[in-house]
Amino acid sequence: MNATELSKIRAEGPLIHNITNYVVMNTTANALLALGASPVMAHAVDEVEAMAGLARALVINIGTLSAAWVDAMHKAARVASERGIPVVLDPVGCGATAYRTDTALSLIRTARPTLIRGNASEIRALVRSGSATKGVDSVHTPDQVRDDAVALSRSLGCTLSISGPVDLIVGGDRVASVANGHPMMARVTGMGCTASAVSGAFLAVSDSPFDAAVEAMATVGIAGELAAEIAHGPGSFQMHFLDALARLEDSDIARRRKVAAA
Amino acid sequence: MNATELSKIRAEGPLIHNITNYVVMNTTANALLALGASPVMAHAVDEVEAMAGLARALVINIGTLSAAWVDAMHKAARVASERGIPVVLDPVGCGATAYRTDTALSLIRTARPTLIRGNASEIRALVRSGSATKGVDSVHTPDQVRDDAVALSRSLGCTLSISGPVDLIVGGDRVASVANGHPMMARVTGMGCTASAVSGAFLAVSDSPFDAAVEAMATVGIAGELAAEIAHGPGSFQMHFLDALARLEDSDIARRRKVAAA
Amino acid sequence: MNATELSKIRAEGPLIHNITNYVVMNTTANALLALGASPVMAHAVDEVEAMAGLARALVINIGTLSAAWVDAMHKAARVASERGIPVVLDPVGCGATAYRTDTALSLIRTARPTLIRGNASEIRALVRSGSATKGVDSVHTPDQVRDDAVALSRSLGCTLSISGPVDLIVGGDRVASVANGHPMMARVTGMGCTASAVSGAFLAVSDSPFDAAVEAMATVGIAGELAAEIAHGPGSFQMHFLDALARLEDSDIARRRKVAAA
Repeated sequence: MNATELSKIRAEGPLIHNITNYVVMNTTANALLALGASPVMAHAVDEVEAMAGLARALVINIGTLSAAWVDAMHKAARVASERGIPVVLDPVGCGATAYRTDTALSLIRTARPTLIRGNASEIRALVRSGSATKGVDSVHTPDQVRDDAVALSRSLGCTLSISGPVDLIVGGDRVASVANGHPMMARVTGMGCTASAVSGAFLAVSDSPFDAAVEAMATVGIAGELAAEIAHGPGSFQMHFLDALARLEDSDIARRRKVAAA
Repeated sequence: MNATELSKIRAEGPLIHNITNYVVMNTTANALLALGASPVMAHAVDEVEAMAGLARALVINIGTLSAAWVDAMHKAARVASERGIPVVLDPVGCGATAYRTDTALSLIRTARPTLIRGNASEIRALVRSGSATKGVDSVHTPDQVRDDAVALSRSLGCTLSISGPVDLIVGGDRVASVANGHPMMARVTGMGCTASAVSGAFLAVSDSPFDAAVEAMATVGIAGELAAEIAHGPGSFQMHFLDALARLEDSDIARRRKVAAA
Repeated sequence: MNATELSKIRAEGPLIHNITNYVVMNTTANALLALGASPVMAHAVDEVEAMAGLARALVINIGTLSAAWVDAMHKAARVASERGIPVVLDPVGCGATAYRTDTALSLIRTARPTLIRGNASEIRALVRSGSATKGVDSVHTPDQVRDDAVALSRSLGCTLSISGPVDLIVGGDRVASVANGHPMMARVTGMGCTASAVSGAFLAVSDSPFDAAVEAMATVGIAGELAAEIAHGPGSFQMHFLDALARLEDSDIARRRKVAAA
């Protein structure tokens, strides 16, 4: 991974298939477009296999579930896995209800995600039953779930990307922290979902899921920092965030990224 | 109720469970976040009871209905009622189609909402069959449906909050009017739904549904006034509205609110 | 058709019934409101016939399909056709999956749309089986599918509006091109869907679907040009676009429109 991943996304415009929640469909599609990727949102059982087969990454987000959508998620993930298309799973609200936890665990078993991206409480709930989250917000920090994350990454053979004030990315024996971002990001709905979608775009153009996950979190965090500098609140922040994603240069990212082996 | 309700929302960040329409999920989640509350959007029959049980208010909005969602609304409302969690019902488009009117009336019977918040034509349609609305827009003023509202409030034992150029809040024998707001608010989709969601947040931290409803309408109206002062159209209005909600001080609300016993 | 169509929309506020995709429900509702029309989003099988019967145009958009929605689209379209209410069909992603192509063709047969508005790859896929699109983005220009469009328009007796760098509108023997617009419009999700919704509003107040389609594409394109002049990226573009739609004067449109018989 080097500073050219963003350039690759812009040059190649990879098609990213999203099966995501209603709340963020518009904003994550716009984030992918701003970044330079080509998003498609499709969830019908009758077409997800065909669509997943066309895509360069599949992003599954369980933010607003229902039974038919879970079927579609399984179908799409199976096609993606068979064809070596990277799969990102965002277990939104995992731990808040048994339905979400069960669905996330079931998707992990059958979808074999390349990357699981969530907040600390969600990741904790994947490892420990009976864990609690507050709706879709985290009550833990990434550092508090570090051991759980390392164990989960090793047992599943996948990368974990855990967002928080300092993000933690875990890939087997490799651990990195990303300290980019701004508190304003927690005042806008779907910033985590956006990080998952953006991670899909980086996975699409990268050979290393771990490096792609790190780069994605740094990119989202830096765009958030740039937006927060000129925002007057969460409304203008959203607008500036999309503008920043579209205007980011590789050099901005290289210069501002606060990534450390952790 | 005093000027500290907004501070309570920000200090406590109450979890507000929304079963709402697709059009406004993103914007009402963002309004609740801007206000300082913690929104969760969940509609699956398999989890609404668990989610409603975690929340401090439940907001049901029938803006885009289908059968499975109506089931989920009933389930969530039953849990909320049993546990004393306040329930807000927004009967969007009630009167436009028989399906919406029937669904709203059925939810009122089983969900026993603490607060019904709608426009004047919607409230009228709850009382009088054969009433008409224009899609989801009102063709009546709150004042024109005052008698209906008082009768409905008394028969149901709930509070009514009716939005319009001058909002009318009715709680049994108490009636108040709120004259905050701006005509630009009618040029943005989901401002009524936002008022319902915000009302849920105020109900979550208040002992008086009537006072909470008044405070919610004043807060939304004042944020709208502040946004309209600097907006160049409905696009920038939306952005400034969220910024204003996040930046509002109790003192702004106390100073600008135009609430009168009506 | 003359420069007063926009004034008619603002004066009459026609109710536009949209059965559209989750990604753009909010943004197309806001575009219709900014324009001066009155949008309603409704998809329940139990109410679409009632709602379509109240509307002055029906806009069907297949961007995020599932079986229940397709049923609702057919029901609504039948009512609209019987009552002479114009129907716009946006075959989003047609050609990307067989499910979308089949659904679009089936809707064309039963719904008899007044106007089909899509990108060039989608239109091509309606005529030629085995055609390809990249997710929901076009890989063809309108000019490349001109012959297909003329043939399709004649065989169906409907108008086609094909968006691209230069839009092409085809109505039997009449062909016009609209050269308004800006590349930034491709960096925001749902601009095509917005054009379809806006086309519905122009059809609602016009006797000529061809002229309405031309005027709609010029209006959207000009609003896009005005927004792009002051935008710093796709986030601010969206905001300025809605502001521009709301502030457009007939004289702006008359002065800036680049429409030619093509």
